[in-house]
Amino acid sequence: MNENGGLPQAATIAIAGLGLIGGSLARRLVADGRRVVAWNHRPHPYEQARAAGIECMDRIEDLALAKPDVLVLCTPLKAMPQALASLAPVLGPHTTLTDVGSVKGQVRDEVKAAGLADRYVGAHPMAGSEFSGYGASSPDLYDDALWAVTVDGHTDYDRFLIVADMICNGVGNRIIVLDDDTHDRAAAMISHMPHVVATALANELTAMPERNIAQALAAGCWRDMTRVALTDPDRTRAMVEEDAANVAELLRHMSRRLAGMADLLESEATAASDATAESSRESIRGFFSVAQPYREFKAWQRSGDVDYDEVSLSIDAGNWRADLLESAKRGEHIIRLAGRHGFVAQVRTAL
Amino acid sequence: MNENGGLPQAATIAIAGLGLIGGSLARRLVADGRRVVAWNHRPHPYEQARAAGIECMDRIEDLALAKPDVLVLCTPLKAMPQALASLAPVLGPHTTLTDVGSVKGQVRDEVKAAGLADRYVGAHPMAGSEFSGYGASSPDLYDDALWAVTVDGHTDYDRFLIVADMICNGVGNRIIVLDDDTHDRAAAMISHMPHVVATALANELTAMPERNIAQALAAGCWRDMTRVALTDPDRTRAMVEEDAANVAELLRHMSRRLAGMADLLESEATAASDATAESSRESIRGFFSVAQPYREFKAWQRSGDVDYDEVSLSIDAGNWRADLLESAKRGEHIIRLAGRHGFVAQVRTAL
Repeated sequence: MNENGGLPQAATIAIAGLGLIGGSLARRLVADGRRVVAWNHRPHPYEQARAAGIECMDRIEDLALAKPDVLVLCTPLKAMPQALASLAPVLGPHTTLTDVGSVKGQVRDEVKAAGLADRYVGAHPMAGSEFSGYGASSPDLYDDALWAVTVDGHTDYDRFLIVADMICNGVGNRIIVLDDDTHDRAAAMISHMPHVVATALANELTAMPERNIAQALAAGCWRDMTRVALTDPDRTRAMVEEDAANVAELLRHMSRRLAGMADLLESEATAASDATAESSRESIRGFFSVAQPYREFKAWQRSGDVDYDEVSLSIDAGNWRADLLESAKRGEHIIRLAGRHGFVAQVRTAL
Repeated sequence: MNENGGLPQAATIAIAGLGLIGGSLARRLVADGRRVVAWNHRPHPYEQARAAGIECMDRIEDLALAKPDVLVLCTPLKAMPQALASLAPVLGPHTTLTDVGSVKGQVRDEVKAAGLADRYVGAHPMAGSEFSGYGASSPDLYDDALWAVTVDGHTDYDRFLIVADMICNGVGNRIIVLDDDTHDRAAAMISHMPHVVATALANELTAMPERNIAQALAAGCWRDMTRVALTDPDRTRAMVEEDAANVAELLRHMSRRLAGMADLLESEATAASDATAESSRESIRGFFSVAQPYREFKAWQRSGDVDYDEVSLSIDAGNWRADLLESAKRGEHIIRLAGRHGFVAQVRTAL
């Protein structure tokens, strides 16, 4: 590891997989002056990537041989076991291994199975779009993005620091530190389950006899609620299957919420008495008012008047994981490293 | 009615309700050089509205007394019966009555109850945002919008033409002609039901113990899928309740789709045999592939390479409703009036 004032630096970064996420990350790191070596399972993006200053390699093993400080797995989730199997025999202990997979428990299991757990730190940048491939990549994809960095009881602190250097200093992004389970439950809530909902909406339209008229009437609401249904459905399916238990549980909750509202609307319309109708009406009002604190939080966030306070975090070397997990729960996002045991975080107001 | 080459023109337009939709419409019509008189249940937007060239009236009855060619009800749905009751005694037969309500069967029933059915043509512009009130209004809200114009067996052709003049020539928008039922089913599909789904997503997040971390991880998918949950919940509730039967039916479909995917994900993960797991996997693949024609249509629409053909429609005076309904079903959107019995329409490719 390169050292600088006690802080490990990710001077050379290897990217395995030059799709939307990996390609955008590579271009962003090159723009920060980092050396980026990359490999893709097919060489078709190499000409463009080389023109952007990325060193492209023939084989994934070549990435390990370049002795990068950090190697980032940016392949699709289903390709990770194969990528790890290819890397395991050749990846030296100097290199810290990380990834950008949208589920973290499953990737850690695969890293363990490949015998690379000692050098692994999980990561998941909250950035993306409904497009795929290097052709759709852009350094801007990471503007103001937050990364979840996932650790367990075996994660090495120096390896965490070098990944944090890549994210905060190299990409210019924020970090929260989580355990795998907390990450996967939260990601199911705000991304994986909603992708299924968006797809179900598109399926419902497709099944409708008046679909052409419905599509003609569609405006902003429909466009936004089905945008992610336009994603490559194989990529969505893989993401959902890798977080299946969490997604299934949330889908059951949503299914009950929607059926419950159908019940209320029908009982309001067909109630035999005014009292019954009013009771249904009151429950419908309740459904629409539950999320009021969330609406107010978003209104504040969107007011343009948002100024986040900064705090300094001092980390106890023996207890760093718990300290950083607590910081994340308080709604703090790490934006800078300040010495080996200090961080600067923004306080983002919590719900 | 003012006549010009046989075509009725909406020279003076009255707007009842200067909220987001009515305010934006009034400003857009003023920009086209039309005389706009307006009323709002509270006078707070009048100073701004007058500065924008809108004549503001003290009482809703004053709108009728101005003898407008068209009077557009832009009040909330729940305020329409009261507005119609106030207008009925004073609205002269010269004035064509229309509205911008998001459900059409219910509004027509209320218009009939007020004794104004003979001068009514329904309308619903597919435009809006999650904001409310005149302060959020903008003429741009109507850019490239489509209006559903709803007719029944009693609708007068000249009254249809004057509303069409206001929409195509005054606002610069497109029209499809529908009956109320077809409109309300389609609107439930692409707007009313998805508003409930977005609200249920926000409610599910609010109920989650890790909601702060989930909210921190939220990116474009979550933002887009819950944007309409930020709408004034009373407005959403009213819209959903007015189209209750259609929304309830679609919510039951969606509820079953989501529970079905939960079943498949669980049976894939816990299958006792490879064959059972593969069968679930195949059904999951099916779920994600159903909407492929819709994805391809949207990809074409978004390619930037879209050029709609124009067709001339010749309308049989005795059969104009059926002719225009058929045109809508073929995916044609009226963009111009061409004489008393002719229209120019864009052919928008259908699903």
